[in-house]
Amino acid sequence: MLLGASFKAAILVEQNKPLVIGEITLPEELDVGQVLVKIHYSGICGSQLGEISGVKGPDKWLPHLLGHEGSGTVLEVGPGVKHVAKGDVVVLHWRKGPGIEANGPKYRWGDKTVNAGWVTTFNEMAIVSENRLTAVKSDTDLEIAPLMGCAVTTGFGTVLNNAELKIGESVVVYGSGGVGLNMVQAASMTSAYPVIAVDLHDGRLDLAKKLGATHVINANDEDPEKKIQEILQDQLLDVFIDNTGIPHVIEQGYNLTGPDGRVVLVGVPKAGSDISIHSLKLHFGKRITGSHGGETKPEVDIPRYLRMYDQGRLSLKDVITKVYSLDDINEAIAGMRDGSLSGRCLIKM
Amino acid sequence: MLLGASFKAAILVEQNKPLVIGEITLPEELDVGQVLVKIHYSGICGSQLGEISGVKGPDKWLPHLLGHEGSGTVLEVGPGVKHVAKGDVVVLHWRKGPGIEANGPKYRWGDKTVNAGWVTTFNEMAIVSENRLTAVKSDTDLEIAPLMGCAVTTGFGTVLNNAELKIGESVVVYGSGGVGLNMVQAASMTSAYPVIAVDLHDGRLDLAKKLGATHVINANDEDPEKKIQEILQDQLLDVFIDNTGIPHVIEQGYNLTGPDGRVVLVGVPKAGSDISIHSLKLHFGKRITGSHGGETKPEVDIPRYLRMYDQGRLSLKDVITKVYSLDDINEAIAGMRDGSLSGRCLIKM
Repeated sequence: MLLGASFKAAILVEQNKPLVIGEITLPEELDVGQVLVKIHYSGICGSQLGEISGVKGPDKWLPHLLGHEGSGTVLEVGPGVKHVAKGDVVVLHWRKGPGIEANGPKYRWGDKTVNAGWVTTFNEMAIVSENRLTAVKSDTDLEIAPLMGCAVTTGFGTVLNNAELKIGESVVVYGSGGVGLNMVQAASMTSAYPVIAVDLHDGRLDLAKKLGATHVINANDEDPEKKIQEILQDQLLDVFIDNTGIPHVIEQGYNLTGPDGRVVLVGVPKAGSDISIHSLKLHFGKRITGSHGGETKPEVDIPRYLRMYDQGRLSLKDVITKVYSLDDINEAIAGMRDGSLSGRCLIKM
Repeated sequence: MLLGASFKAAILVEQNKPLVIGEITLPEELDVGQVLVKIHYSGICGSQLGEISGVKGPDKWLPHLLGHEGSGTVLEVGPGVKHVAKGDVVVLHWRKGPGIEANGPKYRWGDKTVNAGWVTTFNEMAIVSENRLTAVKSDTDLEIAPLMGCAVTTGFGTVLNNAELKIGESVVVYGSGGVGLNMVQAASMTSAYPVIAVDLHDGRLDLAKKLGATHVINANDEDPEKKIQEILQDQLLDVFIDNTGIPHVIEQGYNLTGPDGRVVLVGVPKAGSDISIHSLKLHFGKRITGSHGGETKPEVDIPRYLRMYDQGRLSLKDVITKVYSLDDINEAIAGMRDGSLSGRCLIKM
């Protein structure tokens, strides 16, 4: 039996420290709604960087596992599981799909317990809640599939469901990491114009151009507000998407958008860090909303995007910058932090 | 003074008869909210064909003027008019914009009175209600501008506002005339897939392909229902747009769409001609809605589409098949009826 077996995992033991690679042990049996998955690839999302550095404050779950987008194969299903079956190829995601929301698993690590949420992916095997898994075709590209767990679905969902971006509308995507690049791609595929990407790293901005940005701004070199106004000329800004969580960037977006503009927040400011806006315009059509993973419906959206990828209509290989082994995960994280790695990094198990 | 002057107009005198070209005379003064416009170009929409053949039953307004999309220049404004001024280049449209909804004008024609609604365009001059005019840049392409009155705005608006079509969703546009072709273009610009155009005329289907249809079906040669299912394979149909008003086509659309599908009606069945559907699916996510001109907001949407056209991002010249003089308007109408004319015909005044 696999249950009770040991496997390698990257463990967050202490905030602001490298992850510890350790051998942890599966429990002896699966609880209701739990699914044992062999992970093939995991993506690394900016949220994990935030989790490691503790942007939300002290972490009461330490030590614990991490990661919320991955591809895998189902090895065993617990009682009550109906939506996936042994042998299914699955996408692991953090947005809820159909099925049971199971208890988080507890793994043994020597004499310690390692916690985990409904989904984790920085580990060779994972016990995942049924509602964080979507079965996909057996021939799905396993390297692409993790992006369906967050980068693509959050990126596209934010543009389509939160911003409701339309043909010919103008959009600024502020922050062009893995999710931001997919927003740029979605905006371009929606025939928005102009599609303006802002970032601090030229590597990311080059990728943004490749994925359809009509204009890019490096905020280290130019004043984004001035430059955006220059690009827009007499046009109003319809949509401003913030991926940074930096209050003054959000405020800038609020001021730049027109009377019917939409400011969509994906980045979350640190605890205690507030935004300051004059609310009058909210009475006359302007909207400021927070995205929850692009309001993705995994069971509908993941198959749709995979189908588009199969038809050659999505550029996803471009978004994947580098593939690391689990042993080198801290190197990948460091590269993402300093901006030397653009796009999405993957961990191959 | 221009008021009191005579000008040429195509008049609907009797249903199912050719329009009569006559000289009619302007009233002596403008009423509140009325605007005198010199028409440059008018489009001919399928609705006028329906009006002439009396699809809605007996017409109590005969004799009257026709036409609801055009380009023009403002010659005079009546009391209370604020949104357009003398000398403005305007788009004439049938959807309401801001401003006064004025009384319809009455023209003299010998000893008869000729009626007209809030907007008419099959006439060299027109008294138009302020809220049916949108001022545009003075260098706007006058041949393209009429399409902003209906063909483009209804076509794009139906796809964006009624169908809420998204990247990667599948869509059938049933009926590929002037409005339908713009739906195909909007669907393609939204990165929908597949974009399936259905019509009875190969000329229109060739245009549909040019504008982005990924598949076309001539309903004379193939069974559209069978062919659509073949194209979709294992994918469900997300959106079905009907431009025909033929009950069995609408019913087909209702049956072809998936559980979350949207059936959007643009064509209107003849009076007494009902559709028959089983309503159960409407409780579980399927929607059937009627479009009212794509829910266009003229003051927002017309400048947006004109800007896109100026940037070379809209194919509109392709949609315009032929330009006629007002004297030859009946020839244009006949060609539209028998399908020998694809796309949009214009009348140059």
